[in-house]
Amino acid sequence: MTTAGSPLVGSSGRGRVGRRRARNRERLVSAAAELMAEAGVEGVTVSAITERADLGAGTFYNYFQSRDGIVDAVVAGAVETLGQRLDALTQGMADAAEIYSSSLRHLMRTAVTDPLWGRLVVRLGIAHDQLIATLGPRARRDLLIGVDSGRFQVPDVDIATAITFGALLSAIHAHLGSDQASDPSGVFAESLLRMVGIPAEEATEITQRPLPPLPSLEEARVILGGDAEG
Amino acid sequence: MTTAGSPLVGSSGRGRVGRRRARNRERLVSAAAELMAEAGVEGVTVSAITERADLGAGTFYNYFQSRDGIVDAVVAGAVETLGQRLDALTQGMADAAEIYSSSLRHLMRTAVTDPLWGRLVVRLGIAHDQLIATLGPRARRDLLIGVDSGRFQVPDVDIATAITFGALLSAIHAHLGSDQASDPSGVFAESLLRMVGIPAEEATEITQRPLPPLPSLEEARVILGGDAEG
Repeated sequence: MTTAGSPLVGSSGRGRVGRRRARNRERLVSAAAELMAEAGVEGVTVSAITERADLGAGTFYNYFQSRDGIVDAVVAGAVETLGQRLDALTQGMADAAEIYSSSLRHLMRTAVTDPLWGRLVVRLGIAHDQLIATLGPRARRDLLIGVDSGRFQVPDVDIATAITFGALLSAIHAHLGSDQASDPSGVFAESLLRMVGIPAEEATEITQRPLPPLPSLEEARVILGGDAEG
Repeated sequence: MTTAGSPLVGSSGRGRVGRRRARNRERLVSAAAELMAEAGVEGVTVSAITERADLGAGTFYNYFQSRDGIVDAVVAGAVETLGQRLDALTQGMADAAEIYSSSLRHLMRTAVTDPLWGRLVVRLGIAHDQLIATLGPRARRDLLIGVDSGRFQVPDVDIATAITFGALLSAIHAHLGSDQASDPSGVFAESLLRMVGIPAEEATEITQRPLPPLPSLEEARVILGGDAEG
């Protein structure tokens, strides 16, 4: 699970104790992320987290006040940082269809290349407040760019946002339950481009273009300026 | 929650004991449905169910072997019976776009008119096996009718099925979290009709047609013949 954990640890100068604390916190977050992907939020207990992280049972509360606190940290590490990298990638793009397509393809591809990440977001589910608070506004923003530029025809932006979010999680779930041989990123984005009014042939062409790689979190923060520092 | 419970109780002649058993079972299923809508499957315990149903703690095991058993019964009562009523409604329709649209509008409208039902399916979520096993194949069948008749252009039927399922649950979730003043059934179905290749103006027209009412479960079983008896 490369997307969780490490982004939460800053690289500012720290003593030995500070580095150990950062390492312990990262181990707890990684352990919680694994457990959440396996059993969902409900199945994760503080004792299971410390056991998986191979830390003393009481250590947990040196870093987090509650189970909810570490769940928030996992989601932040796994989804919010990806959101910032997508923000940086699409910031320089002019065409709403390319923005929407690139984001959807990268989100789906992340689930393909990092199934633990995919299982995590599926287990969190469409009703998880922090997940929808992280991805929902970005989907809505990208849809509005298309509507405002006249590129998209969307009967209701809120419904289209909800569809985008639910479609992503459900398509990830279907992919993880399949033989997983193929990468569904392109046809997934193609279906949603058609939904927002891009003609079928053009939707195919856009979603088959070379996909620019995601910037790292550090590159993203440079591109986005200081705004993205959490 | 009118869709759960009563369909599970047959009307065949029973003595007083049989009627009491049927009534108790129905009370347990209704209580479990309420608790699942409030707290999700994970939050439901056998003791919470018997307490809500105002029955003795041991009564539960006269009717169900486990918590999973009653969860299955709740989903069967709440979703499978609705699926059969939709099957009966759409069986006589010739146009794939009308079939898909009518099913989606009725599913969304059921969540609007029966928010307890809506909360139940949202809480079950896109990863719930029995929910996807009930709704998924029906969505796939309806999409294939469109593809086979040349009415729909769908790049990947499995992806389109997953999108339909996830979009439904996510749009219900968004609606339940909104002021709930408007009925999003039409624009929801419109968005998905566009996804499968129906031109925008036609999608609007189809989803604004008068929506034929759902047959009752009893009517549905007559229409479908003996096949639907569970």
